[in-house]
Amino acid sequence: MAEKKFVEEITPMEEDFAQWYTDIVKKAELIEYTSVKGCLVIRPYAYAVWENIQRILDTKFKETSHENVCMPMFIPESLLQKEKDHVEGFAPEVAWVTHGGSEPLEDRLCVRPTSETLFCEHYSNIIHSYRDLPKLYNQWVSVVRWEKTTRPFLRTREFLWQEGHTIHATAEEAIAETEQMLNIYADFCEKELAMPVIRGKKTESDKFAGAEATYAIEALMHDGKALQAGTSHYFGDGFAKAFDITYTNKENKKVHPFQTSWGVTTRLIGAIIMTHGDNRGLVLPPDVAPVQAVIIPIAQHKEGVLDRCRELKEELLKAGVRVKLDESDMSAGWKFSEYEMKGVPVRIELGPRDIESGNCVIATRHNGEKTVVSLENIGETVKEALETVRKGMFDRAIANREAHTYRCESIDEIAKALEENGDGFVYAPWCGCEECEDEVKAKAGVGSRCIYDAVSVEGKKCVCCGKDAVHNVVWAKAY
Amino acid sequence: MAEKKFVEEITPMEEDFAQWYTDIVKKAELIEYTSVKGCLVIRPYAYAVWENIQRILDTKFKETSHENVCMPMFIPESLLQKEKDHVEGFAPEVAWVTHGGSEPLEDRLCVRPTSETLFCEHYSNIIHSYRDLPKLYNQWVSVVRWEKTTRPFLRTREFLWQEGHTIHATAEEAIAETEQMLNIYADFCEKELAMPVIRGKKTESDKFAGAEATYAIEALMHDGKALQAGTSHYFGDGFAKAFDITYTNKENKKVHPFQTSWGVTTRLIGAIIMTHGDNRGLVLPPDVAPVQAVIIPIAQHKEGVLDRCRELKEELLKAGVRVKLDESDMSAGWKFSEYEMKGVPVRIELGPRDIESGNCVIATRHNGEKTVVSLENIGETVKEALETVRKGMFDRAIANREAHTYRCESIDEIAKALEENGDGFVYAPWCGCEECEDEVKAKAGVGSRCIYDAVSVEGKKCVCCGKDAVHNVVWAKAY
Repeated sequence: MAEKKFVEEITPMEEDFAQWYTDIVKKAELIEYTSVKGCLVIRPYAYAVWENIQRILDTKFKETSHENVCMPMFIPESLLQKEKDHVEGFAPEVAWVTHGGSEPLEDRLCVRPTSETLFCEHYSNIIHSYRDLPKLYNQWVSVVRWEKTTRPFLRTREFLWQEGHTIHATAEEAIAETEQMLNIYADFCEKELAMPVIRGKKTESDKFAGAEATYAIEALMHDGKALQAGTSHYFGDGFAKAFDITYTNKENKKVHPFQTSWGVTTRLIGAIIMTHGDNRGLVLPPDVAPVQAVIIPIAQHKEGVLDRCRELKEELLKAGVRVKLDESDMSAGWKFSEYEMKGVPVRIELGPRDIESGNCVIATRHNGEKTVVSLENIGETVKEALETVRKGMFDRAIANREAHTYRCESIDEIAKALEENGDGFVYAPWCGCEECEDEVKAKAGVGSRCIYDAVSVEGKKCVCCGKDAVHNVVWAKAY
Repeated sequence: MAEKKFVEEITPMEEDFAQWYTDIVKKAELIEYTSVKGCLVIRPYAYAVWENIQRILDTKFKETSHENVCMPMFIPESLLQKEKDHVEGFAPEVAWVTHGGSEPLEDRLCVRPTSETLFCEHYSNIIHSYRDLPKLYNQWVSVVRWEKTTRPFLRTREFLWQEGHTIHATAEEAIAETEQMLNIYADFCEKELAMPVIRGKKTESDKFAGAEATYAIEALMHDGKALQAGTSHYFGDGFAKAFDITYTNKENKKVHPFQTSWGVTTRLIGAIIMTHGDNRGLVLPPDVAPVQAVIIPIAQHKEGVLDRCRELKEELLKAGVRVKLDESDMSAGWKFSEYEMKGVPVRIELGPRDIESGNCVIATRHNGEKTVVSLENIGETVKEALETVRKGMFDRAIANREAHTYRCESIDEIAKALEENGDGFVYAPWCGCEECEDEVKAKAGVGSRCIYDAVSVEGKKCVCCGKDAVHNVVWAKAY
């Protein structure tokens, strides 16, 4: 039987990073375009990654007492306008529904770009007493932002996300929630996605529209650019005041509660591609890979090979491994390339000679290493291999980030570091004023990603104006 | 401590069925209204029911080789217009997006009322050879239909659903898929929702816009009205022709494939309310109840009571029961009413005397029965109780349906049966012509719900015109 196709080559990332990314997205069958710009089909393989992300995060949310809810997708224009900063931030990029059937609507509706306003309206209806607090709500939905420039997963007009919205009796409780969720995101990225992140606070100029403080996690991509992988916002009582949400406290006084919101999106799939992918295709972290191990029969026409492969599959299923056996009539070589493109973490090769010797070959996708292992206790062996892969992927990503992290004390030093070693994260002290932030961007090409106060700035001077520094800032070019 | 509220009474269903329904929806905290008519908040308790429905059905879909995918929510007007019947059926009730930010759109976009057109566009891009078939796709999303009259869960402008869309090489395969999915729905309703359904084919006048055949499951509500609980459509190659989807078959000829679609919605929650609910509130089937058993401590201030209740909770969790222990300072009586309103299938009462005797009291929500059982092996006891509840609920629903099922041979007989025994399902033979269908509706007030050919109509005459009958039809008033 003739083969349908050989796996097509992808553009090397060193040659054209953007094209490399697009090639993977198409050839690993993650995305297909539609006739509406920026609105893409998330194909089954990518959606299965998202389902794994959902399952893991949803469990963490529920363990921390959050409940899922579902708000409508439409926000009346009058409701969107209630919080001044918020409407200014989002109104320019929303999609407007003006007609229901053939009838024009009195108050036009936007398709939610985010749902603070809807949650606030709801909270104002259901919260009356301190006994009704806190409410720890989350929803898994899609949102729409009418972006001009779009790229699969990274910036699309519609994207999938979860948005947590919580409301608390005290500011302290709300701040603790904001921090808790940032840490849940960071731990998830570092463990399940094997992707190191920096946690920090956004500067004033980069805050969410309507927030008192925005926290974010930032990851470094293969091309040295930063990607914001998740955000957690503290709102104080600003939204509560704008939406007239009050509750009667234990002293029988009417007061405003305090709010947060936090979210991650399908952008995480873009982050996985650009953190772990290579010139052979996708490399998926085992925890979210739809297929963790693929069995490729060698000389599958020979007696007993497929039978033994099927037994092996059952054994791995029983051990809790997401396993696929490819019995198709394509060549083993074609299959190798196909599952490399798809980023399957572990490949198991099993042929007549392996069966005879009681062994099989395990190849790990991220480093291409092959090992002969015994078929005895293969479930445990594969699970150990998956754990080794996860750690190996994380260590490599950390090493890459360290190699592209620079500590600088002047704009010239920043420019030099980037020029000599390529784009990356720059740690540099800052005086706290927006003019300096803008000037660093203008002169060195990097923007502030987040404030990083784990390192003291005592005695340090602003990288731009030379005055006393107030914060350490992580700077980078960004997606 | 004073109690916050006593559980408020709900309107008896005999007095005002519609108000009874609305009362439950509000007082069991399933729904909250928003400022947009027909767009409701699905509150955590109702959403948790939906999550259970999703989990169970999604597993069944995956076991039958379906994959999840995610299409955009927007359909360009030009794409919607490709299939004539389809656009006629849906265009009058879609919401139109006309602006992105401040810019008017060239081709206006509707918010999907259903996604056949999007799936067809996608299939035309990805299907080339017989090797690409079948594709068995499903998505869990929300859709929008700009209805004039709305009711929580039953008819809302936005609702949650799953829509399966499959494409096959042959008509036989597609028809088998249509039937398989109808059966999966029916089995799910009868087992996990304890709700008996009739499976049948829709008449020509009641088909889905663009379908060759529509199959449905119909359930009988407490008020004697029918509720369509799920549909499965066979499209033939009509959509494939309209959207120019072709594939090269094994004989190397270009031919059109065959398609299906099928869906169930959050309407199922309305069906649960109106099949099982009573004048004390919601009654939830154990398989989808967010809380399957609630533990109510009796005299909880007495030493050892709460400790023993916590042990009991751990034991039930371990046995795989979704359990809640209510330690709040409300009275036991208040708690009884509250969890009756919420429809929790099993209540466990545990107080000092029970602990002393090594027993507890189990009360089952659907019939109000109380039993004293041993605390030993309580996990198994509660699981058995849940199974008894499930069966009891199903049997009661069957009995109710049988009591409101009439077999008639003339329009007068129909009118008489309904008048004497109340609304219900009417089985009556039909000649197959639309005029008779309309006349039955006009004269007896019942419409055709589905064709039911399990019973032969040999020798039978049309209930309306008296000519030879071609089909048995189930008639009813309907939601």
